[in-house]
Amino acid sequence: MRAKTCDMESSRIGSIGLFDSGLGGLTVLRELHRSLPAQRYVYLGDSARAPYGTKGRETIVRYARECAGFLVAQSVDLIIVACNTASAAALSVLEDELSVPVIGTIEPAVRAALESTRGGVIGVVGTNSTVASEVYEQALHEHDPHLTVVSQPCPLFVPLVEAGMVSGEIVDKFIELYFFPLKARGVDTVILGCTHYPLLLGSIQEYLGPKVSVVECSRAIARDVQGLLDQRGAVSADSETTYFVTDEVSRFNYLASAFLGDQRVKAVRIESL
Amino acid sequence: MRAKTCDMESSRIGSIGLFDSGLGGLTVLRELHRSLPAQRYVYLGDSARAPYGTKGRETIVRYARECAGFLVAQSVDLIIVACNTASAAALSVLEDELSVPVIGTIEPAVRAALESTRGGVIGVVGTNSTVASEVYEQALHEHDPHLTVVSQPCPLFVPLVEAGMVSGEIVDKFIELYFFPLKARGVDTVILGCTHYPLLLGSIQEYLGPKVSVVECSRAIARDVQGLLDQRGAVSADSETTYFVTDEVSRFNYLASAFLGDQRVKAVRIESL
Repeated sequence: MRAKTCDMESSRIGSIGLFDSGLGGLTVLRELHRSLPAQRYVYLGDSARAPYGTKGRETIVRYARECAGFLVAQSVDLIIVACNTASAAALSVLEDELSVPVIGTIEPAVRAALESTRGGVIGVVGTNSTVASEVYEQALHEHDPHLTVVSQPCPLFVPLVEAGMVSGEIVDKFIELYFFPLKARGVDTVILGCTHYPLLLGSIQEYLGPKVSVVECSRAIARDVQGLLDQRGAVSADSETTYFVTDEVSRFNYLASAFLGDQRVKAVRIESL
Repeated sequence: MRAKTCDMESSRIGSIGLFDSGLGGLTVLRELHRSLPAQRYVYLGDSARAPYGTKGRETIVRYARECAGFLVAQSVDLIIVACNTASAAALSVLEDELSVPVIGTIEPAVRAALESTRGGVIGVVGTNSTVASEVYEQALHEHDPHLTVVSQPCPLFVPLVEAGMVSGEIVDKFIELYFFPLKARGVDTVILGCTHYPLLLGSIQEYLGPKVSVVECSRAIARDVQGLLDQRGAVSADSETTYFVTDEVSRFNYLASAFLGDQRVKAVRIESL
């Protein structure tokens, strides 16, 4: 997140936009609802083009630009790229091009990992695209070049979660497949580098055992948003969330309940990007 | 496929277009390369928006229209919708709107199943979208209302295949999960209602045993194309395939070898739809 020069009135935060390739970003929204309930949120799930994590950088940058543009047109004053794949590929592009502040997932997750690690051996799991970008290794090593970073792409986790499979024998097989290499290297902290993965937290923590900390971006993002609100002030304290999806509404509503916990999706409209 | 009125010259088949959400349609192209090698093919993989099978009908129809429009702009004289999801959602729309003949996957696969079944208990596996459409049940029952049709969505098969997992313990677990209900109902024939699934044929056949026939659309499609070529004539006998993908070329090339067997992808260009 870079500081933008603007007058005091226009810099106040009226509403907060989030986007993701589909449902994953709802784990970030859930934390924001918990930590900062008295805000206006606009959520865009680009479900018609999901997932992002299997796609090339150029394509992801194009999608992220279009999603951010849609949120700007909804008059949001802050954009959260609630998707690790889009953050890895497009955060710097969006920061350069947009006139509102932009918060991604990478730096907040890195901070959570740095607060947590004791032995300096950090695992990173994410989509193919996020892991291939090496953005986590770079960010961690910028803070401390002596850290050992072990990365692992988990291409089946997003389809599993979106198919409603978050525990059970098959999920445990995948967790073993993906996390065994991290366990073998002695990681003491693992970054869930995809906003879908918190849905698998119970099964992952069980496999890794209580001595390994499993961290992700959402609490650190909520702290960053709080900081920005303290600094700039909020225009309104109305509590409201509007949801947009690019694909069918019904499927989003069905799956969203798993991500949002007890939160109810109040209104969803389709927008064709 | 409906007959179109047109003069003899323009009705001759110069080149054949195929499209799919990504890689699955290559199993159809592979069969065409085998059966009808001396033809010109244009293949479009809409990899930037894949998969289709998890998306809503309206979205799939929009994508299918755009893919078909792209192929028409490439001057193809016949379009094969080499994707069960797109065929289920959009074939009739494309048949109505296009001036070239259109062949989908459903009717050819149904014919293969009808030729194969002895006991009249047919299983159908496909994406969520294809199974929800009930297009296979309807087509099978139009031929014979006494058939028993047992359908099963297999949402993880496409991600597994696209992650290069086509055999092994985890794949077998999914096959058991998805095919046990079909086995329990005593199917004698199973339609692989997704062009990705032939990559899993070995493992599927092993689970179902030799008494169950596993069929799919590609050979019947090749026969339909042969029939059309015999009827209308071919403009040229040049053997050539041009590949287009909407996402990154490198990933397509890497995975395409698994689908095309020994065939080599000769040229790939990105087109942004």
